[in-house]
Amino acid sequence: MKIDNSPPRGTRDLLPDGVALRDHVLGRISEVYRRYGYQRIETPALEDIRRLRGGEGGENEKLIFQVLKRGLGEDVDAGSRLADLVDLGLRFDLTVPLVRFYANNHATLPTPFRAFQFAPVWRAERPQKGRYRQFYQCDIDLVGDGSVLAEVELIEATTEALDAVGITGTTVRLSDRRFLSALAAHAGLAEAEWSGFFIGLDKLDKIGWDGVRAELVDKRGLPATAVDEVRSVIEGLTGLEAGAVADRLADAVPNLADEVVADLATTVGCLADLGATRAVRWEFDPTLVRGMGYYTGQIFEISHPDSSSSVAGGGRYDKLVGRSLGKDVPACGFSLGFERIVDLIPEAPARSALAVLFEADVPLSAALGRARRERAQGRETTVLRRSGKLPAQLNRLEAQGFTGLVHLRDASTDGTAEPERPLGAGD
Amino acid sequence: MKIDNSPPRGTRDLLPDGVALRDHVLGRISEVYRRYGYQRIETPALEDIRRLRGGEGGENEKLIFQVLKRGLGEDVDAGSRLADLVDLGLRFDLTVPLVRFYANNHATLPTPFRAFQFAPVWRAERPQKGRYRQFYQCDIDLVGDGSVLAEVELIEATTEALDAVGITGTTVRLSDRRFLSALAAHAGLAEAEWSGFFIGLDKLDKIGWDGVRAELVDKRGLPATAVDEVRSVIEGLTGLEAGAVADRLADAVPNLADEVVADLATTVGCLADLGATRAVRWEFDPTLVRGMGYYTGQIFEISHPDSSSSVAGGGRYDKLVGRSLGKDVPACGFSLGFERIVDLIPEAPARSALAVLFEADVPLSAALGRARRERAQGRETTVLRRSGKLPAQLNRLEAQGFTGLVHLRDASTDGTAEPERPLGAGD
Repeated sequence: MKIDNSPPRGTRDLLPDGVALRDHVLGRISEVYRRYGYQRIETPALEDIRRLRGGEGGENEKLIFQVLKRGLGEDVDAGSRLADLVDLGLRFDLTVPLVRFYANNHATLPTPFRAFQFAPVWRAERPQKGRYRQFYQCDIDLVGDGSVLAEVELIEATTEALDAVGITGTTVRLSDRRFLSALAAHAGLAEAEWSGFFIGLDKLDKIGWDGVRAELVDKRGLPATAVDEVRSVIEGLTGLEAGAVADRLADAVPNLADEVVADLATTVGCLADLGATRAVRWEFDPTLVRGMGYYTGQIFEISHPDSSSSVAGGGRYDKLVGRSLGKDVPACGFSLGFERIVDLIPEAPARSALAVLFEADVPLSAALGRARRERAQGRETTVLRRSGKLPAQLNRLEAQGFTGLVHLRDASTDGTAEPERPLGAGD
Repeated sequence: MKIDNSPPRGTRDLLPDGVALRDHVLGRISEVYRRYGYQRIETPALEDIRRLRGGEGGENEKLIFQVLKRGLGEDVDAGSRLADLVDLGLRFDLTVPLVRFYANNHATLPTPFRAFQFAPVWRAERPQKGRYRQFYQCDIDLVGDGSVLAEVELIEATTEALDAVGITGTTVRLSDRRFLSALAAHAGLAEAEWSGFFIGLDKLDKIGWDGVRAELVDKRGLPATAVDEVRSVIEGLTGLEAGAVADRLADAVPNLADEVVADLATTVGCLADLGATRAVRWEFDPTLVRGMGYYTGQIFEISHPDSSSSVAGGGRYDKLVGRSLGKDVPACGFSLGFERIVDLIPEAPARSALAVLFEADVPLSAALGRARRERAQGRETTVLRRSGKLPAQLNRLEAQGFTGLVHLRDASTDGTAEPERPLGAGD
């Protein structure tokens, strides 16, 4: 019988080189976030299915892996609604768990609370290229600060984390949900129409203005004059110089609150400061929407020329914690697209390992003793039996990343005297 | 409405201090394993439910969290056997996935293959104190070497990993499944009775010899004379000196193959060598069984005086890979009880962080600029707004692990000149 040893459809085995690259990337990112005072937290992979279906997850709520109640036998005749048999699900993002975590533990957490998470999420996606059913997210959140300190710090830390893994040439795209709402009101849209407007506008980079107009006017029944006014304002606000953003916004959308303009001016000013020590490119992008419904203030994404989708995205969500905790707590977060970032990095740092190769009649204790002394010096050392033809074995070892060789051939050796030779220099 | 924000029953949120301790422990263990040439691999959390129920998991197969097929709506009327609705499950250990991983990827993996895994597993346990439904395991495996090089290396690496996290005073308990089989044959038990004999003997430390005798004779119907003979042999082999193990074993169980005696002598000799550089206590324990049915050779556990169950356990399983791959590949593994190890370590290493505290009228850019310079020196630095009474805020910061303070009070500061003061020295 031929056994299928593949992992479940849509999931992957991660081999040593792949894991080494991922550990390297995660190590660098964690180092940066820790330097900004963020501490890692962890939540269980499983959450209550009712919480996962609570409405914060948008389309992802349709992609939940549902878990049966504990103790149901495989011979059970379900005979009732499936919903009665399911009590848990695998998380589809790290924001729903973070909010529950904060609400559950807020009494013992500092204010403000700086957290980062690195963990897998699961989505029961249709099978398609490049979409996995288990993948990692890396989220950083600042809970309990309502000022743009949060936005600026998250953008600074995240661009620095990308720099640290060698991802350069990125652009931070910045907008504000309050600007989009004011723009919608200014164009004459009723508040009930705003969320449809956001959803349509979010498709601009895929379907262009004609597509957006068709969706908003023909499909959603929004007034054509309003959509044209939105387009005209947005086009007038595209490609602004740093210093001009605040003034031009206030002119173009007169009903925009002073506070929103002041917040954007502060964020933009701090990003400009940052430019003195690191090259951080940014732009005000009036077409930026971000899919999730929970954003309440500034929103941002980071684009990279080699990636069609953004490598990171986030924003302020001041009303989300309140739905679990019962009182509002301001919060702002940034999520790194970890899998996309890994794809942008060519390879893991080179291994530098020593092989202690011993012939069949050399005592095991001699080989182990030599390896022990090498490891005591901090050297990565692997003990290997000689097998097959020597040149072929040495070629294999070189291909595996071994850079040094100690070859024990003499049956009377105690493993101390044999010199190390570079691997690949012939034997 | 009062919302329950607890994690699902039997699971936990891990707070920053807890995660810091776990990351510290994992970092040290990984460092040791990498120094021995082991590379981390990763498999998906979900596996095919038929594989999970394949018979390698013993009692754990009854504790699988079952996952519904993708795309089943919550309004589906199941109306059929539940088994038809389930195609995946959450893994209950790391051995079943390792074997599938090796069988799936063996063509691109080196021989022998040294792997370590650190990952959560899930078991739908009955609710009880100290038992979690999600917990971490840390496994190290050497696949493709049939000699005791594997056993000795795994024991050496694992005791060194425990040393590296400060867990001392451990004892390695060593035996061999082939010894137990020979003992059973020597005592006159038929081969069909051996697995029942192993299961009964495995309970010795919980129920004593009287309990084992009752179980084997009264419950399983084994001959009383055989059980008494086993007891007599085992008691004669308890507390042996290192040098005496091989001879005494050969005497006590004359049908024991020479190879088994030689292997034990080599392992014991290499452990004695190791004693020259590190204090590794070990003993031959003829009562050691290890629960899982798949062991074929030497088996071992590590005990610690402060933990009632062992902190690590493993052994050789030469027939397991073959059931997936279709041809046998020798293998040996060691699993660290990560949660138990973490429980034995009192606390995470102290944090050393700087707080940049700024008054309301100090520009945000000054605080951010100062923090940026501190971080550029590698310092963990957090920017915080002044709020409430100063002494109370400083006390909170100290309690959170901040050791230094820069206090920006002057509205005209650019953040460069203010000195750092140790926190806790008054303000």
